[in-house]
Amino acid sequence: MSKGDQVEILDFWASPFCARVKIALEEKGVKHVDSEEDLFGAKSELLLKSNPIHQRVPVLLHNGKPIAESAIIVSYIDEVWPSKSLLPTCAYDRAQARFWVDYIDKKVFETGRSVWASNGEEREVATRDFIEVLKHLEEALGEKEYFGGDGFGYVDIIAISHSAWFFAYEKFGDFKIEDHSPKFSAWIKRCLQRESVAKVLPDPEKVYQFVLHFRKMSGLD
Amino acid sequence: MSKGDQVEILDFWASPFCARVKIALEEKGVKHVDSEEDLFGAKSELLLKSNPIHQRVPVLLHNGKPIAESAIIVSYIDEVWPSKSLLPTCAYDRAQARFWVDYIDKKVFETGRSVWASNGEEREVATRDFIEVLKHLEEALGEKEYFGGDGFGYVDIIAISHSAWFFAYEKFGDFKIEDHSPKFSAWIKRCLQRESVAKVLPDPEKVYQFVLHFRKMSGLD
Repeated sequence: MSKGDQVEILDFWASPFCARVKIALEEKGVKHVDSEEDLFGAKSELLLKSNPIHQRVPVLLHNGKPIAESAIIVSYIDEVWPSKSLLPTCAYDRAQARFWVDYIDKKVFETGRSVWASNGEEREVATRDFIEVLKHLEEALGEKEYFGGDGFGYVDIIAISHSAWFFAYEKFGDFKIEDHSPKFSAWIKRCLQRESVAKVLPDPEKVYQFVLHFRKMSGLD
Repeated sequence: MSKGDQVEILDFWASPFCARVKIALEEKGVKHVDSEEDLFGAKSELLLKSNPIHQRVPVLLHNGKPIAESAIIVSYIDEVWPSKSLLPTCAYDRAQARFWVDYIDKKVFETGRSVWASNGEEREVATRDFIEVLKHLEEALGEKEYFGGDGFGYVDIIAISHSAWFFAYEKFGDFKIEDHSPKFSAWIKRCLQRESVAKVLPDPEKVYQFVLHFRKMSGLD
């Protein structure tokens, strides 16, 4: 790709799905313009035109051409800017990475949302479910530095993008991630030391305040 | 890959998710052993060991190494047996193909299931939703021969794998696919003429009988 590439993200500051796209671009050293969408107001014409099926962020506009769905965007970024590969080079390892990305996409945000967007027994069940997810991730990580092995890669980007929300999950679920998955907890700290991650992820306290606001608006408090 | 490859699928005859794996292997000319799982009895030790997280078919065992999640398996097959590429070679087109595969995976089976596994108003809503999905696919196909353009590819395999269930959806939803999406309907007929597809897909009438049986067992009839 030429240096004259125009890279724009249709973004929302608190979205883990947007964060992963920005982390991937930072890892690749690709400059990007982040265009904040007002998710509580009217969606922009550009968003509706770029992602007519799902009408949601993130969308990556690469020289004006739209790509939607965050895990697909990160994979695209890895293929288009091939320096410092994020996906493993071996087909089998790549399939395993895609498996965990799919697992994280199906489980983490939805289960986490069930923790903070519920009350009483429903929240207790959701918290147990979330701890189960953590245990699977703990096992998948094993003794490795990163999900990708020695290097920070595709699964790491997808998983760490959720971490700014973990503080809210812990507060509402009344649990500590490190009590249930110490290796995963150490992995979070390791990832947060990376410039790309630290630069992109929002403040967990700000996300927590956002969650409180959302709960009030939804009549949960 | 060497000619001595051992390729086994943990399979279930009616599963669209298993069908797509078999179609991809047929397209690549890869010999495979299909090991039928008894989904209504005890899951095999091999399935539980090979896919401990989801514990479901299909699993591809390639020289004994397991790969789970059907869309990921098809992508793996394309990478490992690279003759006659299923995914587009251009990164942008590949991202678009992955977008539609993801859309089909999120929508077709679940919406279809809501049509046949419901009654009354719930079924009417599900039928309208399914017709909406058809319209999106009709638009994505446009004037092309295949979703992949001139050639039968990744999106085609993922989408056609569901078609043996369409007869049941039409019967329960009281609609005809060709009335709502004539190009998609013509595309189905085109795909069914392919040897790989014709060989793999189960008889729609047999799937319909399976659905009737399932409804009775679930107390829906």
